[in-house]
Amino acid sequence: MKDEEQTREGQQQEVPGSVSLRSEFDFIAYIRGRAAQAESPSPSVIAGIGDDAAVIPQNSGNETVITSDLLVEEIDFLRQTTTPKSLGHKSLGISLSDIAAMGARPRWALTSIGVPLEIWNSSFVDEFYEGFLALADKYGVALIGGDVSRTPDKIVIDSIVVGECASNRAVCRSNAKPGDRLFVTGTLGGASSGLRLIERGARLENVGRADDSQLLHELLLRHLAPEPRVGWGLVLGQEQLATAMIDLSDGLSSDLTHLCRESNVGALVYSDRIPVDPSVSELCGRRALDPLMLALHGGEDFELLFTASPSQVAKLPKRVDGIGITEIGEIKSAQEGIRLCEGQRVWDLKPEGWRHF
Amino acid sequence: MKDEEQTREGQQQEVPGSVSLRSEFDFIAYIRGRAAQAESPSPSVIAGIGDDAAVIPQNSGNETVITSDLLVEEIDFLRQTTTPKSLGHKSLGISLSDIAAMGARPRWALTSIGVPLEIWNSSFVDEFYEGFLALADKYGVALIGGDVSRTPDKIVIDSIVVGECASNRAVCRSNAKPGDRLFVTGTLGGASSGLRLIERGARLENVGRADDSQLLHELLLRHLAPEPRVGWGLVLGQEQLATAMIDLSDGLSSDLTHLCRESNVGALVYSDRIPVDPSVSELCGRRALDPLMLALHGGEDFELLFTASPSQVAKLPKRVDGIGITEIGEIKSAQEGIRLCEGQRVWDLKPEGWRHF
Repeated sequence: MKDEEQTREGQQQEVPGSVSLRSEFDFIAYIRGRAAQAESPSPSVIAGIGDDAAVIPQNSGNETVITSDLLVEEIDFLRQTTTPKSLGHKSLGISLSDIAAMGARPRWALTSIGVPLEIWNSSFVDEFYEGFLALADKYGVALIGGDVSRTPDKIVIDSIVVGECASNRAVCRSNAKPGDRLFVTGTLGGASSGLRLIERGARLENVGRADDSQLLHELLLRHLAPEPRVGWGLVLGQEQLATAMIDLSDGLSSDLTHLCRESNVGALVYSDRIPVDPSVSELCGRRALDPLMLALHGGEDFELLFTASPSQVAKLPKRVDGIGITEIGEIKSAQEGIRLCEGQRVWDLKPEGWRHF
Repeated sequence: MKDEEQTREGQQQEVPGSVSLRSEFDFIAYIRGRAAQAESPSPSVIAGIGDDAAVIPQNSGNETVITSDLLVEEIDFLRQTTTPKSLGHKSLGISLSDIAAMGARPRWALTSIGVPLEIWNSSFVDEFYEGFLALADKYGVALIGGDVSRTPDKIVIDSIVVGECASNRAVCRSNAKPGDRLFVTGTLGGASSGLRLIERGARLENVGRADDSQLLHELLLRHLAPEPRVGWGLVLGQEQLATAMIDLSDGLSSDLTHLCRESNVGALVYSDRIPVDPSVSELCGRRALDPLMLALHGGEDFELLFTASPSQVAKLPKRVDGIGITEIGEIKSAQEGIRLCEGQRVWDLKPEGWRHF
């Protein structure tokens, strides 16, 4: 069970009087132990439960990387505030992002989709696949299978992507070393501010011609139809430039915590280096939101967070597919914890991103 | 999108005044066309959409086979009439059955599981994985990943299994030839009569010590925790004994139709050769059910339906893992249609098994 890589829309629903007794991360650790118990330890699984994707070695010198991502209506998206086409794009995009975070090339996709009868009898599923296949086409991914099921009332999608990389080139979360530099692709905070705007009534189809309409449009798209960093994942994996990598789905604070826990290291992040999406900074000022908080905890940006040893830093390309990178900090020993340096002050950086349980 | 391989419990819910405008089989054909359009035809996918599993060739002389199966609460199972452990077994079992139907060896599994908070905070998920991992262990399958998500109220599970076979040994649905003999493993009708018994109030935990309690228990288990024919799949695939194969998930009449459509052939089935589960015959007599109808259309037996060329029939083993096979008919030309021979009469055999839409 990899750490969940969910996207979501809408507030977490609180069940009155009910408290989640264990987090899904505890559960993943538990299942990991159970799975190891249930069979003789398998040398054939290199990275299994607890990474962005599972790695299956092949005899030919290649490895197969596979990920699945569940999207549930009302938890991960709202039917009223997305479009079927965006949902198709996003459901594939979040799985492509997992494959990118392994440094692998996405090749094949399967989708299991469950819909109620009234959705089946609408254009929803066709439009869903229109968005899905447009993104698949862009990255040379073939839709090869899946499942179709009826549901009582909610839409549910499980997106499965299979990728490939050369043997021992899969970039896991577990190999960061103290002294490594910490990088992030692109900009942060866009997706979560897009979500906030949607919660306040903004809709893609209603974005007008006002001055800030272009900004609005971009932020809504970052939430509704995120672009996976497939090119960066490939470069970092093929050229062995990254020591560890994760995609930013839960939020920088949470995903950095996952990476550090898997690598048994700490980290120091400089708040003034975090590449906050400029549209977020501009729009937040007018809407009383804190751009840094959105960038740190907002999640769903689907950028890549990776570490590189100091000797490799000069070899990192400036841009891939038009997307730059920013060095935001460095890896420390586990004893030093995960901290955020803000001017003269240093705080503990707690994982405050998304969690399902 | 492979033809759906769903299991289900309970009656199909009819939405008053609503008619499904297209079947999921039409839809699968449509997506198949769309997927072929969206990219340059890929020589790297041998069997894609429309078979039990998708086949991905490897350079090393092996092929990777992958399947996903969605199980939705209230459509495919009822929380009240199954046990979490059975559900874990079944969710893996139906995917193992797909891999068996490709003649491949199952190796790795991923599960995407979505549950509401109250289920998360119960022992349900632990017991689910207990059943899942016991079956995985039995067949040497490693749980390597997946996803965990919250849902508003229903449980949903997507089971993904990855298998392997030698190059060009995957047994597709599409290679049956007129003159081939038609075989089925094990016995039929058990799972659907188990479902009927559950609908009439029978529960695993209440099966008593009456004369028919052993029969009852077996039939309930055939529905709640079906045993995939992994051994038969391997033998038929590795020794190239089957020309085409499909697992019986929707029901013999429907799955034979899928196989014939993919192979562009017809078939003649002899009703008196259909291996009706003896427990079904015994119990049906007392409960006014027609055993042959259950065996023909009931579905979910997860036996294998396969074709063999006449020259290979003598090489077929009598039993694998204690399970025998029965020759139930033969493949005919497409023009001859799919027919059932019952004594002196020959009927058209219509697909009357399960469909989601």
